[in-house]
Amino acid sequence: MIKLYSYFRSSAAYRVRIALNLKALSYEYIPVHLLNNGGEQHTADYESINPIKLVPALVDGEQTITQSLAIIEYLEEAYPNTTSLMPDDVNLRANIRAFSQIIACDIHPVNNLRVIQYLNNKLDVDETHRNDWYKHWITVGFDALEKVLAKQPGKFCFGEAPTMADCCLVPQIYNARRFEISLDNYPNILSVYSSCKEHPAFIQAEPEKQPDMA
Amino acid sequence: MIKLYSYFRSSAAYRVRIALNLKALSYEYIPVHLLNNGGEQHTADYESINPIKLVPALVDGEQTITQSLAIIEYLEEAYPNTTSLMPDDVNLRANIRAFSQIIACDIHPVNNLRVIQYLNNKLDVDETHRNDWYKHWITVGFDALEKVLAKQPGKFCFGEAPTMADCCLVPQIYNARRFEISLDNYPNILSVYSSCKEHPAFIQAEPEKQPDMA
Repeated sequence: MIKLYSYFRSSAAYRVRIALNLKALSYEYIPVHLLNNGGEQHTADYESINPIKLVPALVDGEQTITQSLAIIEYLEEAYPNTTSLMPDDVNLRANIRAFSQIIACDIHPVNNLRVIQYLNNKLDVDETHRNDWYKHWITVGFDALEKVLAKQPGKFCFGEAPTMADCCLVPQIYNARRFEISLDNYPNILSVYSSCKEHPAFIQAEPEKQPDMA
Repeated sequence: MIKLYSYFRSSAAYRVRIALNLKALSYEYIPVHLLNNGGEQHTADYESINPIKLVPALVDGEQTITQSLAIIEYLEEAYPNTTSLMPDDVNLRANIRAFSQIIACDIHPVNNLRVIQYLNNKLDVDETHRNDWYKHWITVGFDALEKVLAKQPGKFCFGEAPTMADCCLVPQIYNARRFEISLDNYPNILSVYSSCKEHPAFIQAEPEKQPDMA
């Protein structure tokens, strides 16, 4: 059985949980608490699974895969008879990957826990300025995502069914809402969100539904 | 003809230049200077090409693709008769994507120009602490990459021919060397680097070889 190393609040792990649910692939949930005991991701045991000491990691038989987008593409290729999250059209695939990477490369890494901890612990950045930082990178990123979605009709990011892009967008919206960032300027993002939040695969992947919910 | 919006020193653009060269795809180089005039990536013209206002962007006929890894995967799928940078094996593809994403998600975005500018301009972080920051994220990332490569025999990251992973690694090494970060602890990274730096596709993609070299 597939094992997913996850933390309930990690938005990268959340992406993979959505993808696994959309594909109806059952999996064992293995919690890695990113704060307790100095961060369980720093243990030697976990480092042997994921050398960059972040979640998620997915173990499928003999294969260990890290990085959320690599995992989703792996599931797509290793389980071709499940619900597809990537269409066949080359141009559309490129657009879906680019959209996903705006989130996975340009928004999330800069606001990730380890970066916020560095601002706090090593640069003495106070909470107000840390929150400004967090909001800034989400705003820059969401401004771009909104422009992309404005050209895309359909209930979901790219059409009438969820793709990898939706797996990335919803966890990033969760982070924005958690930091009370207004989404009023993003009607297209909100429209996709309203479709996703009714979908069982997205609901079951929510942080509050996970076994390690604090 | 393919058009590449690039900046000579952008390591994300550098990845795509290597991939285009490895595939022997000719392209028109369109410089976007990230510093002059407040950053040419912020113009309305460029924003209409890439809404996140970063380089690279690639235009191929009617299709515009952003995000370096999405572009490389697009080239792989749109030009199947060129030299492949992704093997067929599903597990190996996952490993190559994960390795590439350690660089593209976990190292590079945190050290990107716009982030360093924010540290400088908005948080008054001095040069010493900015350099510590830069070095920290490279060290954390390279520690992980070195562990991955230690399990991989072969001249290049994953075997005897360059893949997307090598396209990502070499520009990140360029950044590390530019900031005078010692690579002595990374014999496996250096071994791959010694193979790549002799390869014409990598040589021709070097920042110093680009038409907008300052």
